[in-house]
Amino acid sequence: MKHFLSLDQHRRDELEIILDLSDKLKRERRENEFLPLKGQTWAMIFSKTSTRTRVSFEVGVRELGGQVIFLSASDMQLGRGEPIKDTARVLGRMVHGAIIRTYAHQDVKDFAAFSNIHTVNALTDHAHPCQIVADLMTIREKMGNMDDKVITFVGDGACNVATSWIFAAKKFGFQLRIAAPKSFSPDPLILQNENHNIIVTDDIKAAVADADVVYTDVWVSMGKEEESLNRQELLSGFQIDMSLMKLAKPGALLMHCLPAYRGMEVTEEVLEFHAKTIFDQAENRLHAQKAILAWLVS
Amino acid sequence: MKHFLSLDQHRRDELEIILDLSDKLKRERRENEFLPLKGQTWAMIFSKTSTRTRVSFEVGVRELGGQVIFLSASDMQLGRGEPIKDTARVLGRMVHGAIIRTYAHQDVKDFAAFSNIHTVNALTDHAHPCQIVADLMTIREKMGNMDDKVITFVGDGACNVATSWIFAAKKFGFQLRIAAPKSFSPDPLILQNENHNIIVTDDIKAAVADADVVYTDVWVSMGKEEESLNRQELLSGFQIDMSLMKLAKPGALLMHCLPAYRGMEVTEEVLEFHAKTIFDQAENRLHAQKAILAWLVS
Amino acid sequence: MKHFLSLDQHRRDELEIILDLSDKLKRERRENEFLPLKGQTWAMIFSKTSTRTRVSFEVGVRELGGQVIFLSASDMQLGRGEPIKDTARVLGRMVHGAIIRTYAHQDVKDFAAFSNIHTVNALTDHAHPCQIVADLMTIREKMGNMDDKVITFVGDGACNVATSWIFAAKKFGFQLRIAAPKSFSPDPLILQNENHNIIVTDDIKAAVADADVVYTDVWVSMGKEEESLNRQELLSGFQIDMSLMKLAKPGALLMHCLPAYRGMEVTEEVLEFHAKTIFDQAENRLHAQKAILAWLVS
Repeated sequence: MKHFLSLDQHRRDELEIILDLSDKLKRERRENEFLPLKGQTWAMIFSKTSTRTRVSFEVGVRELGGQVIFLSASDMQLGRGEPIKDTARVLGRMVHGAIIRTYAHQDVKDFAAFSNIHTVNALTDHAHPCQIVADLMTIREKMGNMDDKVITFVGDGACNVATSWIFAAKKFGFQLRIAAPKSFSPDPLILQNENHNIIVTDDIKAAVADADVVYTDVWVSMGKEEESLNRQELLSGFQIDMSLMKLAKPGALLMHCLPAYRGMEVTEEVLEFHAKTIFDQAENRLHAQKAILAWLVS
Repeated sequence: MKHFLSLDQHRRDELEIILDLSDKLKRERRENEFLPLKGQTWAMIFSKTSTRTRVSFEVGVRELGGQVIFLSASDMQLGRGEPIKDTARVLGRMVHGAIIRTYAHQDVKDFAAFSNIHTVNALTDHAHPCQIVADLMTIREKMGNMDDKVITFVGDGACNVATSWIFAAKKFGFQLRIAAPKSFSPDPLILQNENHNIIVTDDIKAAVADADVVYTDVWVSMGKEEESLNRQELLSGFQIDMSLMKLAKPGALLMHCLPAYRGMEVTEEVLEFHAKTIFDQAENRLHAQKAILAWLVS
Repeated sequence: MKHFLSLDQHRRDELEIILDLSDKLKRERRENEFLPLKGQTWAMIFSKTSTRTRVSFEVGVRELGGQVIFLSASDMQLGRGEPIKDTARVLGRMVHGAIIRTYAHQDVKDFAAFSNIHTVNALTDHAHPCQIVADLMTIREKMGNMDDKVITFVGDGACNVATSWIFAAKKFGFQLRIAAPKSFSPDPLILQNENHNIIVTDDIKAAVADADVVYTDVWVSMGKEEESLNRQELLSGFQIDMSLMKLAKPGALLMHCLPAYRGMEVTEEVLEFHAKTIFDQAENRLHAQKAILAWLVS
């Protein structure tokens, strides 16, 4: 039974198959003749709300011929009341796959282990693999390839998106620079890497210099609102604006996995200047996730 | 890109096409061969809950061959956290249309402007155009036409339903009488009209006299519960009962857009006496909204 | 218009048709050629959340070719604000059937009476007929038949599951033993029975002795959390463990309608020892409910 829980669990050639399929599904979206989920119902179990993740998966499953049951935190609290191993064993008898957005990564691993159905990590505190597949797809689409590129992540270097970027860098060999305050550095265990293609620094200007892609994420993600003021203060030197982008390569991309908070991690000006890239990136969630689902059942 | 946001934005002939299509879709509901939304997914974004509006649109989209994603206030608060222009740009890449029920009319206009997908106003504080299309359909169905009719709206003359009735009267030329307390009179700017076919009065008996249709709405709609006692007091003289209906034309219709509160805007007796009309009117939401959706994509 | 509200409203031969169809639908699930709900949309109105009941019905309706609208307590509070007779009359015009999980059994009966569409009781305080159909299916599947069996229900003998077991025993004639504290005895009116095949006792060992099936349910169901401590105390002698099961017939089944609370009504050890039966039983909700729906529209 194949799952998609974290990029470090997949070989590079598997990820390349998924990326190629993403491109193909985007090109052929209108024709809509490819229905590998026909007759299937997938459960979407979301402990955190998310318009973008939810809509992209709901539309994706349906465009692949499947049906969706959306179970929100109010419908079911994964692991509250009933152990995950019971919920997984019940749902595994009824649905054909599960797309889970929750807090603890272990919960998704447990669900996958007990349910005996395809399980997709739609976001945990640890990793956000579907986002990074969409991001890599976007970079390939706009720059031809990503292998010789410099990609600079700016913000919380220990967040799930940064972690998944590190896993991607280990697979693909592009140069990944992480510009983060020292207190938001990635976990050294996650960083361990013989390829020497990942740099961590708190010098944002050095990190952005001559980068092909500058990438940022919201500073205060859902469920961390109580840490908000402290995080804003620590991350205050890591805002991306027009002048910072001038340090990057001419034509460099600004990417953002959204939602964006103007005046925090980005300025209104720089966000709107790069809106075409950023909303293409958002759209690519749909195509990339369809490719992941199709690959799982293939 | 066509939208359906308010009746004053549409020509009379467009509304007549929609009304004719409503009749046709009602007649042919069982055959269900007309699938103009095939392959499409529409987002329903509802900041206010509503069984009637929700079910009629969900069933409608599906009977036209489409799929629905329902996003409630708990899933997504339109304009909270993320600006509408961002949400609209993301959803516009993923879904084929949006049906929005929210508070501020401007939010629906902004969504339509930025999303680049068909957008339908399923209810705002300003207007309720889908309800009035269903109402006009019902009047045509029961009375043959509405052009020479006298339609009396009783209640809050400044509410969204009354406003949409005013827009309809300006397009179609029937006589519209609004019986409302002075403090609930329609906005003079909305009333502006060269046709002289709209009368506003606080004399409910005069307004109902010889009317073909008497129409009322709930006094305290969702989100206005804190004004409840004050509204009840001001509107207390505007209850519809059997004796008031005797002032109208013989065979006059009583219409109500539901939910109905017995003992408030209507008595139990008058509501149940006219139940056939009122539940036909409710059912016509389904047919009228299917016609609106089909017209949008035609 | 056929409904499925409580087992006592159906003849034995109707229930046997449903049980035979359940088996057939389980065998033929993968082929999925039987689409009696094609073109239909069913409303699921759930005042209480429930993963198991919800997912089994949502998947079931879809596998029979239908569509589902899920209305949760936050979307609509059945009987709050609007009388059920109005909600029923509106929904009855728009959808083809209703699956209702709520508190008061009378609400489901009222909905059925006014809506003029097929109505299914997915759980009320009074009865849980769909669960017992799945349970009977499971017993037939594992033991060939249930007619000459001894089935022992352990726990709250006045709960909805126990009540539906009593109705089943009256129809089918197997021996039903209810092991419950005196304060949780079944209602004498419900027990009234000329067949003398139902025994109520507070001697759990005597009740389990030589039983073919031992059956239990959660002690504190949703909505009764405030009675939790009191119920735990009263039911503390009614836990099922490995040594109790040794009193039953060799090869006796342990069944549980889930969710299970380890250390309360069952031990972890006995639950996991009988997990295959219990999760087969859970899966059979899907097949049994599909059969009920198909029978309703046949």
